[in-house]
Amino acid sequence: MSVTVAVAGASGYAGGEVLRLLLGHPDVEIGALTGGSNAGETLGVLQPHLGPLADRVLEPTTPDTLAGHDVVVLGLPHGQSGPLAAQLGDQTVVIDCGADYRLEDPRLWEQFYGGDHAGSWPYGLPELPGQRERLRGATRIAVPGCYPTVSTLATVPAVAAGLVEPDVVVVAASGTSGAGKAAKPHLLGSEVMGNASAYGVGGVHRHTPEIIQNLSRVVGGDVSVSFTPTLVPMSRGILATCSAPLRGGVSAADARAAYEKAYADEPFVRVLPEGQWPQTQSVLGSNAVHVQVTVDEAARRLVAVGVVDNLAKGTGGAAVQCLNLALGLDETTGLTTVGLAP
Amino acid sequence: MSVTVAVAGASGYAGGEVLRLLLGHPDVEIGALTGGSNAGETLGVLQPHLGPLADRVLEPTTPDTLAGHDVVVLGLPHGQSGPLAAQLGDQTVVIDCGADYRLEDPRLWEQFYGGDHAGSWPYGLPELPGQRERLRGATRIAVPGCYPTVSTLATVPAVAAGLVEPDVVVVAASGTSGAGKAAKPHLLGSEVMGNASAYGVGGVHRHTPEIIQNLSRVVGGDVSVSFTPTLVPMSRGILATCSAPLRGGVSAADARAAYEKAYADEPFVRVLPEGQWPQTQSVLGSNAVHVQVTVDEAARRLVAVGVVDNLAKGTGGAAVQCLNLALGLDETTGLTTVGLAP
Amino acid sequence: MSVTVAVAGASGYAGGEVLRLLLGHPDVEIGALTGGSNAGETLGVLQPHLGPLADRVLEPTTPDTLAGHDVVVLGLPHGQSGPLAAQLGDQTVVIDCGADYRLEDPRLWEQFYGGDHAGSWPYGLPELPGQRERLRGATRIAVPGCYPTVSTLATVPAVAAGLVEPDVVVVAASGTSGAGKAAKPHLLGSEVMGNASAYGVGGVHRHTPEIIQNLSRVVGGDVSVSFTPTLVPMSRGILATCSAPLRGGVSAADARAAYEKAYADEPFVRVLPEGQWPQTQSVLGSNAVHVQVTVDEAARRLVAVGVVDNLAKGTGGAAVQCLNLALGLDETTGLTTVGLAP
Amino acid sequence: MSVTVAVAGASGYAGGEVLRLLLGHPDVEIGALTGGSNAGETLGVLQPHLGPLADRVLEPTTPDTLAGHDVVVLGLPHGQSGPLAAQLGDQTVVIDCGADYRLEDPRLWEQFYGGDHAGSWPYGLPELPGQRERLRGATRIAVPGCYPTVSTLATVPAVAAGLVEPDVVVVAASGTSGAGKAAKPHLLGSEVMGNASAYGVGGVHRHTPEIIQNLSRVVGGDVSVSFTPTLVPMSRGILATCSAPLRGGVSAADARAAYEKAYADEPFVRVLPEGQWPQTQSVLGSNAVHVQVTVDEAARRLVAVGVVDNLAKGTGGAAVQCLNLALGLDETTGLTTVGLAP
Repeated sequence: MSVTVAVAGASGYAGGEVLRLLLGHPDVEIGALTGGSNAGETLGVLQPHLGPLADRVLEPTTPDTLAGHDVVVLGLPHGQSGPLAAQLGDQTVVIDCGADYRLEDPRLWEQFYGGDHAGSWPYGLPELPGQRERLRGATRIAVPGCYPTVSTLATVPAVAAGLVEPDVVVVAASGTSGAGKAAKPHLLGSEVMGNASAYGVGGVHRHTPEIIQNLSRVVGGDVSVSFTPTLVPMSRGILATCSAPLRGGVSAADARAAYEKAYADEPFVRVLPEGQWPQTQSVLGSNAVHVQVTVDEAARRLVAVGVVDNLAKGTGGAAVQCLNLALGLDETTGLTTVGLAP
Repeated sequence: MSVTVAVAGASGYAGGEVLRLLLGHPDVEIGALTGGSNAGETLGVLQPHLGPLADRVLEPTTPDTLAGHDVVVLGLPHGQSGPLAAQLGDQTVVIDCGADYRLEDPRLWEQFYGGDHAGSWPYGLPELPGQRERLRGATRIAVPGCYPTVSTLATVPAVAAGLVEPDVVVVAASGTSGAGKAAKPHLLGSEVMGNASAYGVGGVHRHTPEIIQNLSRVVGGDVSVSFTPTLVPMSRGILATCSAPLRGGVSAADARAAYEKAYADEPFVRVLPEGQWPQTQSVLGSNAVHVQVTVDEAARRLVAVGVVDNLAKGTGGAAVQCLNLALGLDETTGLTTVGLAP
Repeated sequence: MSVTVAVAGASGYAGGEVLRLLLGHPDVEIGALTGGSNAGETLGVLQPHLGPLADRVLEPTTPDTLAGHDVVVLGLPHGQSGPLAAQLGDQTVVIDCGADYRLEDPRLWEQFYGGDHAGSWPYGLPELPGQRERLRGATRIAVPGCYPTVSTLATVPAVAAGLVEPDVVVVAASGTSGAGKAAKPHLLGSEVMGNASAYGVGGVHRHTPEIIQNLSRVVGGDVSVSFTPTLVPMSRGILATCSAPLRGGVSAADARAAYEKAYADEPFVRVLPEGQWPQTQSVLGSNAVHVQVTVDEAARRLVAVGVVDNLAKGTGGAAVQCLNLALGLDETTGLTTVGLAP
Repeated sequence: MSVTVAVAGASGYAGGEVLRLLLGHPDVEIGALTGGSNAGETLGVLQPHLGPLADRVLEPTTPDTLAGHDVVVLGLPHGQSGPLAAQLGDQTVVIDCGADYRLEDPRLWEQFYGGDHAGSWPYGLPELPGQRERLRGATRIAVPGCYPTVSTLATVPAVAAGLVEPDVVVVAASGTSGAGKAAKPHLLGSEVMGNASAYGVGGVHRHTPEIIQNLSRVVGGDVSVSFTPTLVPMSRGILATCSAPLRGGVSAADARAAYEKAYADEPFVRVLPEGQWPQTQSVLGSNAVHVQVTVDEAARRLVAVGVVDNLAKGTGGAAVQCLNLALGLDETTGLTTVGLAP
C-alpha cells in the first residue's frame, strides 16, 4: 500500500519535520509540497537537510494544489488551517499541526488566539485515556501543541489517579524551534545562545488552555494550571517540570506505580528507572517521551518531569503517529523511540 | 588604600571569577593564589582568560600560604573551608564561597551535606532585609549559593509583604559552570549541548534548605519550598521561575509595587519595566539581578522570575560585594551592573 | 536474513552510534554488548537515548563474549583493537572504528600513535576510487577517521583530476563528540560552549597521515597536507575547508564539473547546487556528505568545503555502510541521507 | 576631564558594545544615542544588558542630534557613515565602526561593496607597524573589520619578518554577532545552534581586500590572501587559522621569536606560551588578542592562530582604543585584557 501525502507549509519547521519523517515511512509517497511566500522556491535551498527532496519546487498553498491526495498535513500559522480545511474533501485525511482545531471552547479560542473559532477536531494525543479510539479512522485530526503534549503526559497519571490536588504548576524549558522559522530579532542565534529567558508568564501563553483542557477531561472537573514557558539555548527539545500538592499519604512508590501502570502499554512513553531523570537529548529526533516522578516529602508535592522533542513527538512525529492511526496502519510505522545523542 | 587578598582554590570556577573581578578592583592587590592538586601549576594554563596573572604559580592551600593577607577568599569544595578557616587569624577577613558556613541548623547540614557542621557565618546576601548591617565590618562571611541568591531575591518581596502563602515552587534553569570544573562525564560538552535535564528533584538538592532558611527568616515562620534545578546548555546564568498561591485580592499592580519598593535602593537588583521579562544574557559577568513579577489570575498564583550570573553575583561577585562591605568600601567598588551581551 | 552483530565499546560514542543505527537496520540482530570499566552496568543508564536496549547489561570486552556473532564492531581506544581482533575467528566480519588498522606505513603509526603497528585492513571509505570493490565481502575493515573522511572526500575530485597542485591546506571545525566520552576538563560543557579553539596544530594531529595516505593513493605520488583541527561548540559535525593552488587555467566551472562527475553515482555524497555552501546541521545523524567547490580567482586557489556528521558517516554510519558491503547487502541499508535539522 | 561621546546606531551590536565599554570608561560622559528605525524606542528594551542606560530614548540619526559632542562613534550599516560624517564638524572626533572608510582603493570598494567610495581614514589598528602614530590626535578613524583585525595580527609578524611567502590562507570561525542584529532566517538560533557553515567562499567576502591591504602595507608589495569565513555556534569570538609557505630554513623557534618580538610592547596582544593554543573564550568581552604560531615541518608551512572577541577588540573595543589615542588618553583606559570565562 502506498498513500499519497501532501504537505502544506513545507518550508517551515513543522512541515520540514513531517517531511523528514515521511521520507523514512515505508507506506507513504510524498505528493505536493506547498508554501506561502516561498512558493516557487526549491526545497533544497529552504530545507537543505531533506536531500532526497532537494529538487522539489514549492507550489502555492491552495485547495487545488492539495487536492487529490489521500492525506494532507497542514503546517501553517494559526488561523490559516480553518478556511483551507473547509475546502478539502471529506474523504481526504487532514492532519493539522497548527492550533486551529485544538480547543473545544470558542471563548477560550477567542481569548487566547482572537478571531473566529474554526471548531474542534479529534485531538491527536493517543496516549490520553480513551483518545486512541477516537483517532483510528478519523479524517480530521488536530495535532497537539508541543508544550501541552509533554506537560499533559507528565501530569496525567498523577491527576487521573487522584494522587494530587488538581492544582498544577508547570515550568517548561524549550528549544527555539518551537517559535518557528519566522525571523524575529529575539530569536537570533546571538540572542539565544548563552541565554535563558522567560516569556508568556502569568498564564497568558496560548498553550495554557490546551493543557487545562487535557487535564480537565481526565479529572472530569476543574483543573488549575500555572504554566510558565522558558526559552533555553538549544534548537529542539522541551523539558517540563510539573508539580502539584500531594493528597493524603501518597508516597514516591505510589507515584511511580501510577506512572508505570499508565504507560505500560504505550509504545512511545517510557517511565525511566527510579532515580534516572529525563534529558531532552535522549529523545532528539524521536517520537519518544521520557518521564520520571517522585515526591518531595518536605514540601508535600508530587514532582514529575517529562521530555519530548518539540518538533518530533511535539509536532511532526505526532502528525505521523496520527496519520498511522487514521489510515489503520501500525501506530509506530516510520517512527522511532531512539534519540540522536550525543 | 590597597588591600591584599589571597585566593584559595584559584584554579576553579569560583576562584577564577573572584580573580577576574579583583583584577578590575581599584583597591585590591592580589596576593597568594593556591590550589589543591593543581599546586605548582601556572595560572596561565589553568585560567587562560586571566592574562595579567598568567605567570603566577599556584601554591598549596595551607594556612601558611594564606597567612599575612588582609582578606582570604576561599573557593573550595564543601567541607574544606571549615578546618582551614579555623587556622586563619581573627583579624583576617575570610570570605567563603563554599557551603560550609551557610546553614544555621546543624541537622540540616548533616542531612544535606553529611559530616560535621562547621558553624554559621554572617550570610553574604546584603539584599536580604536587615542583612547588610551584619556584613559591614564582618571578618567572616559565608557567600550564598547561586540558586539561593536568585531564588531568594525573586521571592522575598512577595513573602515579606504577605502577598502569597509561604508555599513556594521554584524551578531554576542553570548553566553548567555551577557544577564546577571537576571533569564528570555528564558535564561534557557533548552531553550538555543541545540538552536540558533535571536533577536533584524532590527537594534533595543541597540548596533547598538554604532557600528555606532565607525565606523563613523573612517570614518569621515556616516556609515550604519545592525546588527543582535543571541544567541547560550555557556556561553561565540561572533563570529562576518562582510562584506561590496568592492571598486575598492581590493584583499584579500590588505585586509590582511590592517588588519596586523592596529594591528601590538596591544597587544591584533591578525590577524590570512592566512586561519585560528577565534573560540571563543581560546580567552575564555582572553583579546585577533582574527580576519581574506578575499574577496569574486564573491560577491565582504570583509568578516571579529572576536571573543572575551564577559565577558573578551568584558567587564571585557576591564575594567581592561582601569584601567591600567587610572593609568599609563602597559596596559597588569593582563591580558592574552591565552584562556582556549578546 | 538476520545477521548477529556484537558491539565492543558499547558505552562510548562510537559504539552508541553504531547501536543507534543498527536499531534501525532491518537485517541485523544486536548481540553481545561489551564495555571496559563499564562492564556490568546497564545500557539504559549509559546511553539513555537507546530506549529499546535500556535493559541490556554490558559484558566484559573479551574474545569469548564477542565470539559466535556474524559481525563484531569495535569501538575501542586505539591500541586495543589489534590484540583483540587477532583472537576473533577469520569468518567473523570485524569492523574496527578505531585507528589500529588504518595506516599502512608502520613508521607513520609509530610516529603518530606509538607502540607496535597492528597492520592494515581494507580502508572503509567506499567513495575512494577503486575502494568499494575491496570492501565487498571483506572480513576485516578499518573504518576511517572522522576528519579524514570529510577532508578526503572534499579534496579527492580536485587532486584526482589534477586541477590543483598536491599541496593541500585543510582547516576543520569539529563538534566535541569526536574527542570521545572520557571526562577531561577541557571538554567540559562550561569550557566548550561559547568557545572555539585550535589544537594539534602544525601537522601533529593523528589524522594527518591518514589524509595524506588517502590523497597520495589517488594522486599516485607525494602529497603535502597542512591539517589544522579546531573545536567548536556543538556536539556533532565537522566542517572542513580545503584549498590548494590551482593549476593552469582551471575555472570554477571546471572544478564543479569534476566534483559532480566524481560523485554522480555515490549514494551518500552530494555536491550542492552552485552557490549553496554546506552546513553540518544538514547532515546531522545521517550518512550524507555535502560538498561544494569554487575557485578563488585572485588567490588562484581551489576552495572546497565538506561536511559530515563525525559520529555518523564519520564513524558509526561508515561502520554500517562497511557492514553492508562486507555482507553483500545493499550499501544503503539502514542508513539515511536525511539530516536532523534544525 | 570628561569627554562627551554620542553613539549613532545604539541599538545594534556595535553600538551596544561601544556603550558597554564606555559605561566603564572613567573619562567619558555618554551623550546622544541615536537609532534608525528604532528612534523613539527605549534603550532598556533594545539593549537590556545596559542597565544604567535603560531609560534613555533613541533619537534619530541626524547631524543635528550628533552635533555638540567631543566624539561621535558611528555603528551604522556600510554606506551610511560617509554622507553623515561629511556633515559633522572637523573638530569632532569621528570614529566609524563601519566599512566606509577602511579601503584605500576606490576600485576595491566598488568591487566589494558597490556604490561610491567615501574615501579612507586613518586605519584604527594601532598594532600595525607604524600605525599607532597616525592615530594619536586623529579626528577621523576607521575601525577595522573584525576578521581583518585578528587575521592581520596573526599574520603580520611572519610576513613582516619575511619568514613566509606572501601567499596566505586564512580560515576563520566566527560567532554570529558579527553578522549583526538584523533578523535573517539563516541567523536564527534554531539554524545556528548545533551547526557550522561556510559562506563567502572563494575570496568574495568583503573583509578579503582589507586583509590584503593590511598585509601589503607591511610587506611593501603584493600579497595573496585566500580567506574563508565560517559561522560557528557561539555569539562572540573569532578563531583565525592562518598559514603560509615557509621560506628557507625557518624553524618554529624562529617563528616564535618573531611573534614575541613583534608584540613585546603591545598592551593587548599576547603571544601564548609555547604549546598553548588560543581559544576565544579567553578573550570574551576583552580587548585582548591571543596568538600562537608554529611550523608544520612536513608541509613546510608556518601556521599561526589568533583569537579576538569580534564585538570587543574586533569592533567596540577597538573604537574605544582609538578614542583613547585620538584624545591623547592612555590607550588602555576603560579596556581590559581579562576575558569572561568560562
